[in-house]
Amino acid sequence: MTIARPRIYFSASISGGREDAPGYAALIGALARRGIVLTEHIGRPDLSDVGESGPDDAEIYARDISWLREADVVIAEVTTPSLGVGYEVARAAGMGKRIVCLFRPETGRRLSAMIRGNPAVRVLEYGSGEHPDDVARRAMAAATADRPQRVSRTEPDTDSSDSLEETARES
Amino acid sequence: MTIARPRIYFSASISGGREDAPGYAALIGALARRGIVLTEHIGRPDLSDVGESGPDDAEIYARDISWLREADVVIAEVTTPSLGVGYEVARAAGMGKRIVCLFRPETGRRLSAMIRGNPAVRVLEYGSGEHPDDVARRAMAAATADRPQRVSRTEPDTDSSDSLEETARES
Repeated sequence: MTIARPRIYFSASISGGREDAPGYAALIGALARRGIVLTEHIGRPDLSDVGESGPDDAEIYARDISWLREADVVIAEVTTPSLGVGYEVARAAGMGKRIVCLFRPETGRRLSAMIRGNPAVRVLEYGSGEHPDDVARRAMAAATADRPQRVSRTEPDTDSSDSLEETARES
Repeated sequence: MTIARPRIYFSASISGGREDAPGYAALIGALARRGIVLTEHIGRPDLSDVGESGPDDAEIYARDISWLREADVVIAEVTTPSLGVGYEVARAAGMGKRIVCLFRPETGRRLSAMIRGNPAVRVLEYGSGEHPDDVARRAMAAATADRPQRVSRTEPDTDSSDSLEETARES
């Protein structure tokens, strides 16, 4: 996949906790030098775990799913547990997006088996001492690396994210 | 939907934190009087946030997705933010499952817009003072209530969970 300015959906905790927000802002800044970050608000220091003050939850949901559809790659910071991030990773897998999850093992947290054991997800570990530009470079390289083509299907699939995963599992 | 002994996928935080584990155990006990709980291990007091000691992450992932497929209803406790729970809610929506999310507002936490603003999810609030049997009864009533039939599609859909959600939105 070679896209001059890939559209990047950056996903990270909002309601789950904002203690890593400065790190999100640094990653977003570094990713913005490599593509168009659709979700730049995730790094804003004035965005608290109370969430956005403008749109209601249904509007946020509809907007985020729309951005997810537009994205070429999905980069999720998964160190802080978050319902929204887990939800978006699953939806992105169902849409056949390339998904890279960034995780800092230094926190001592265990990463969910639904992420770590997921054949549709690439997990990249990093440390808080690593330069955000290096993390962003590694994340984009992993997100844009060649992968097997998805098997085309001839019938409607009521749970299409599985077909992706089962394809990935075969590789 | 009338199923004598519905199969229930109960989803709750493991890696995200186990502080509510006694509550999960009480809910599982109450749900087990109304159906077959496929995921009884979620309530076990010896299950820490380090996760299960037997299967590896890929095995846990494959097993949980298999149980999710078998389930008639999905009941998720969403008070403690969790990547795995968010992931499973999205996958369950993609499979067309009935999903009820249980949330305790008394914690002061905000529930993710991807759950609260999600037309495929029913959110039920409860308090720690409510009897688990009453919570389970309300959850099962919400999970088995009539809902509009899904619109059938004539073309393969690469992101089928949307069609469900858009159907729900029309109702």
